[in-house]
Amino acid sequence: MRAVLLAAGEGKRLRHYFKRPKPLIHLLGLPLIERNILTLRECGIKDFIIITGCYDSALRDCLGTGEKMGINIKYLYNPDWKLGNGLSAHTFHKEFKRDEKFILMMADHIIGSDVIKDFVAEAGNIKQNEILLAADRRLEGVYDLPECTKIKAENNYALELGKGLQEFNAVDCGLFIGTGALLDALSGSIAEGRYALTDAVNRLAGLNRVKLHFIDGPWVDVDDLASYKHAEKMLLQSLIPPKDGLVSKFINRKFSLVITKFLAQTGATPNQITFFSFLIAVASAICFATANPLCGGLLAQFSSIVDGVDGEMARLKFLKSNYGGIFDSILDRYADFLIIIGMTYAWYAATGNTTALLVGSAALTGMPMSMLFKEKFQAVTGKPFLPGYDGISRYLLANRDGRLFIIMLGGIFNLLPFTLILLAAVTHLQTLIRLYNARKLA
Amino acid sequence: MRAVLLAAGEGKRLRHYFKRPKPLIHLLGLPLIERNILTLRECGIKDFIIITGCYDSALRDCLGTGEKMGINIKYLYNPDWKLGNGLSAHTFHKEFKRDEKFILMMADHIIGSDVIKDFVAEAGNIKQNEILLAADRRLEGVYDLPECTKIKAENNYALELGKGLQEFNAVDCGLFIGTGALLDALSGSIAEGRYALTDAVNRLAGLNRVKLHFIDGPWVDVDDLASYKHAEKMLLQSLIPPKDGLVSKFINRKFSLVITKFLAQTGATPNQITFFSFLIAVASAICFATANPLCGGLLAQFSSIVDGVDGEMARLKFLKSNYGGIFDSILDRYADFLIIIGMTYAWYAATGNTTALLVGSAALTGMPMSMLFKEKFQAVTGKPFLPGYDGISRYLLANRDGRLFIIMLGGIFNLLPFTLILLAAVTHLQTLIRLYNARKLA
Repeated sequence: MRAVLLAAGEGKRLRHYFKRPKPLIHLLGLPLIERNILTLRECGIKDFIIITGCYDSALRDCLGTGEKMGINIKYLYNPDWKLGNGLSAHTFHKEFKRDEKFILMMADHIIGSDVIKDFVAEAGNIKQNEILLAADRRLEGVYDLPECTKIKAENNYALELGKGLQEFNAVDCGLFIGTGALLDALSGSIAEGRYALTDAVNRLAGLNRVKLHFIDGPWVDVDDLASYKHAEKMLLQSLIPPKDGLVSKFINRKFSLVITKFLAQTGATPNQITFFSFLIAVASAICFATANPLCGGLLAQFSSIVDGVDGEMARLKFLKSNYGGIFDSILDRYADFLIIIGMTYAWYAATGNTTALLVGSAALTGMPMSMLFKEKFQAVTGKPFLPGYDGISRYLLANRDGRLFIIMLGGIFNLLPFTLILLAAVTHLQTLIRLYNARKLA
Repeated sequence: MRAVLLAAGEGKRLRHYFKRPKPLIHLLGLPLIERNILTLRECGIKDFIIITGCYDSALRDCLGTGEKMGINIKYLYNPDWKLGNGLSAHTFHKEFKRDEKFILMMADHIIGSDVIKDFVAEAGNIKQNEILLAADRRLEGVYDLPECTKIKAENNYALELGKGLQEFNAVDCGLFIGTGALLDALSGSIAEGRYALTDAVNRLAGLNRVKLHFIDGPWVDVDDLASYKHAEKMLLQSLIPPKDGLVSKFINRKFSLVITKFLAQTGATPNQITFFSFLIAVASAICFATANPLCGGLLAQFSSIVDGVDGEMARLKFLKSNYGGIFDSILDRYADFLIIIGMTYAWYAATGNTTALLVGSAALTGMPMSMLFKEKFQAVTGKPFLPGYDGISRYLLANRDGRLFIIMLGGIFNLLPFTLILLAAVTHLQTLIRLYNARKLA
């Protein structure tokens, strides 16, 4: 399936703040239109048609042939872009292939990638004389409702659309699966001198041919500074993975998202951030070994926070890689080992007590067990080991976020022996509990 | 698809040695027919028809309704089993459903499970007026060629079959996909007073309706003591997984297969064997810690050998489980940790040298890295990390079989410090090499 992106308009309201064409405004490190292209690429879309108007050459200069992104881009120029976005959408008729279904998306709408994936998957369920429109019926949650195009819907079909509609139960998210029927409707309404996309969609709605797909994720039409800020917030929130541990969820993400928001503007790569997190852990280990537990503890927790940033950045800027996942896992293990060795050394050097060595060994061997168990579980069962499987034992804080949090507290309160005993206890106890529970789960 | 197993004959030649009906003779812990049922179950077959004759009640008593194996068994009795196996096969016509395709297998043929899987997958490629026959054209490798039914084949079709055929280029493995055409041909040849299955197959071959599937794995018709021994050997060899490390492949398997052959006769479960292997490792750790390196080293290697037995036994007796895989992995890690701690303690207790602690920590942290890397690689790429990916670095012997072999040598020659340094070096070096190579592989 091909995707058609409407990027012909002027976008006056944001022009004042950003001094560049609206589709090229950077949102967390990526131009709006590039973010949409990369999201669609994740859905398997390789061929893009960009309809230009006001900023034709700027768009061509910025995005080129798409080769760098591993996709193909064709540009269609609509000289009469000022008349309305229906005329721009209609420009696609030059490229349209008989019986083709295509995605039609506004370049400046930001929509969660899961929402787009679900929507694209529905393309097969419409007839050639219908179109599919993404709609949101969670009206109380819609951002800037007065500005939205409203829909009067009945049984998954739109009856009427319009910005000024008095009676409505959903709004239009600006994302379509188009067919020849849409282009015909556009021809018809243009012939009547009505140039908005909504005019053509309304014609089809009158024939009961606008099927609706109700979305259940976030989206926003980036139109002014307030909606831009909202989109930023929405995207950052979407970076939190569902399998987060307790400390990660309630503490670390508050900080890591701030760092990610800052670093998104730079060229920092996820692997560089992974390595930086490792270096902080090395510094933490050195602090512990040199009898600086306060620094050691704080650095351990800082490393843990930065350890969340690499993944956030990878998702935010479409830089996820298999290698990144492996690199992160292996460096995390070494980071853990070094911190425990630093703490054990500090205890032993201060007291000469050989118990330190025994406890240190126990903590050292406990550190990799959580990951080992989870990866093995996934390898044999084919499904990820979810935090919920741990039940009440997730309060042991034996996952990495929890362990580094315990280490921070141990450093702050200068309680290294107790901390090492606790780490050894929770890690091995959690392994035993998981091994016991796995008899039913695996 | 349903499977029909022919188990009506007397099997005189083995009667003398085993004192029980031939289909119920135990081969490595399982009756011949049960092994075939369980192999077919792995191919997704749930419904079985067993054609009985000579040993009707013994078979019913042994296998029951199949509920224990999670399958359904129906029995069809052929009172005239003495006349020939074609008559037994024809008994299935009472149960046959129009247009059904079914697997027809001799209860006493042992065929590699991959061979059966590939064969069953071909069922869709024959027409309703054809049958599919598994054939072997690797004539020099066929066991007891004179006893086999020969096939004259041309372009994947059989022209003629017969035990005494002078001109032939393949042999019949006794495994069919049957259709209504087979039952019709059986009716025809029985009406002419010819009661062997081969008579009916020959009729179809004359009409060019016996399609051949040439197998590329092991099989044997268990007919006498020599072929029974051959089947035993063949099955044991098939238990060696392709991803074996060097020490495992060239040393450990020689011993583990002998243990498996012995334990197959008992009720020992794979998880019990896993736990036994762990206990041997604990004993090894204690020996090292109490300055008994020779015992420690030998026990470590023995534990490594037994660590291969659980998997062999699981595959041999169809006892593979997700939990078994997890249990084995976690216990292996604890076994490794304890042995390293035992060795480090021995070195430190004897010398008081703190270098021992540093080297011990390095070896301790290196032990889980191989598994961690491999599991993570599989989790992110979706494909297993194969031994070939290590290239020349597999000679570092940093996988578990190699590490325990190094430990054995270290124990025998009483070179604990050197062994620990070596273990630390090879495990971390291998991790670094893998991390470097993964940039391309992942």
